Amino acid sequence: MTQFPDGMVWLVGAGPGDPELLTRKAEWLICAASVVFFDALVGPGVLDLIPAGVRTVSVGKRSGRHSKDQASIDRLIVAAALAGERVVRLKGGDPAIFGRATEELDACRAAGVSVAICPGVTAASAAAASLGCSLTLRGMARKLVFATAHVRAGAAPELDWQALADPDATLAIYMGKAAAAEVSRQLQAHGLAEDTPVAIVENASLPGEQSLSTRLDLLPLAAKACSGSGPALLLIGTALQPVPSRAQQCSHLALSTISRHTA
Amino acid sequence: MTQFPDGMVWLVGAGPGDPELLTRKAEWLICAASVVFFDALVGPGVLDLIPAGVRTVSVGKRSGRHSKDQASIDRLIVAAALAGERVVRLKGGDPAIFGRATEELDACRAAGVSVAICPGVTAASAAAASLGCSLTLRGMARKLVFATAHVRAGAAPELDWQALADPDATLAIYMGKAAAAEVSRQLQAHGLAEDTPVAIVENASLPGEQSLSTRLDLLPLAAKACSGSGPALLLIGTALQPVPSRAQQCSHLALSTISRHTA
Repeated sequence: MTQFPDGMVWLVGAGPGDPELLTRKAEWLICAASVVFFDALVGPGVLDLIPAGVRTVSVGKRSGRHSKDQASIDRLIVAAALAGERVVRLKGGDPAIFGRATEELDACRAAGVSVAICPGVTAASAAAASLGCSLTLRGMARKLVFATAHVRAGAAPELDWQALADPDATLAIYMGKAAAAEVSRQLQAHGLAEDTPVAIVENASLPGEQSLSTRLDLLPLAAKACSGSGPALLLIGTALQPVPSRAQQCSHLALSTISRHTA
Repeated sequence: MTQFPDGMVWLVGAGPGDPELLTRKAEWLICAASVVFFDALVGPGVLDLIPAGVRTVSVGKRSGRHSKDQASIDRLIVAAALAGERVVRLKGGDPAIFGRATEELDACRAAGVSVAICPGVTAASAAAASLGCSLTLRGMARKLVFATAHVRAGAAPELDWQALADPDATLAIYMGKAAAAEVSRQLQAHGLAEDTPVAIVENASLPGEQSLSTRLDLLPLAAKACSGSGPALLLIGTALQPVPSRAQQCSHLALSTISRHTA
């Protein structure tokens, strides 16, 4: 039985965006809360599930836009809990995967505030579902690697490219679209084949979802062809072979080896 | 709007076990199905949500026990769809992560059966939530690696230990308990520090959940101390530092550096 007394904080995974991909527990928690602090990455349909009597506060962060810094968010959450509120901190995806949960957990614990995590569906799972493929393959893609390419504007992501250029793994790069050219160049420079299958999935599970299937050397072109401004995931590896039955339904770009899907 | 016409197959992620961690979409699908083929790893509370009028068929596979082979499962699902049923294939966790989704997707497509995936919460996310920690840390654990140590009895897992022994990553090894001694030995032999934090989480999110927090060199002892028979996940890396506030609530094993938590 889920406990949610006054003065407690729940870090809740909102999943990839589609309100249908929220867990039953997350739905219960956002209805039982007195206040919900939410991210820019939480889907609008998820916010619609929050009852009118529950106060909602946007603490959205998105690269390049003005937003509250992490320390301010930590203070807000702790102050609300210490004031006796039932606090939900609603985060896109799963709080434990690139969700900066540690900072908020530590801030709560340092203040003596009870805190717990409700997990969510991470973007890579939703993207694979949208593409109709698995992220792992028996005997071929036996390892799945999540990394993030989210960096300050202009900076190159600091990643261990040698370790990432692994033909036996599937690589999921969160927030990867802006770094697509660097990802393509570095992975090839470190030995990954130029025809390794790649997909870009933007706004996975949302009405504005777009995906492009291509190969590693064409990834920079595909990223430019991806028109949306939402968060995008790069999926790279043998497991991402385009599905024939989907490819038949796709409209095609001028560059015929890139296939585009829209929701 | 989710489509579920007669003759269609949905591969549905049941999540880690707790029925509260099922997505709203998965709940809708198991209620709209005419037949549900389920795994041994699907939580009993999830099965309780299936309405009485929906036929349920166990196709459970668990290491070392007799069960249907993958090809038989593929045939069963396809035959049911071709007979006009609305088929849910319910899998523990997320279908795209070590769920052998590819085999079933391919079988459906080869038979001309419409098939789609509903993603789920994967065990690593649930285990992190139970431990009250993140799987990634800014600047320290910037990469998350999922691997599986599930092998035939007696065989050693074939893993690229050099790539896995990465101090900047969190490593999640699915079905890892039986291979704990090998994992501990190989990761140390390939340079991972003996005091790297480790957790074993068994039956994550279920009433019988057990977790042990320890260090890499003590992992074999911790695995022996883990008494359950359920699926266990090994989590390895700096992000797994035991949480002080949790450690205080724990009973302690004779081996004081292993801390045990039970649900």
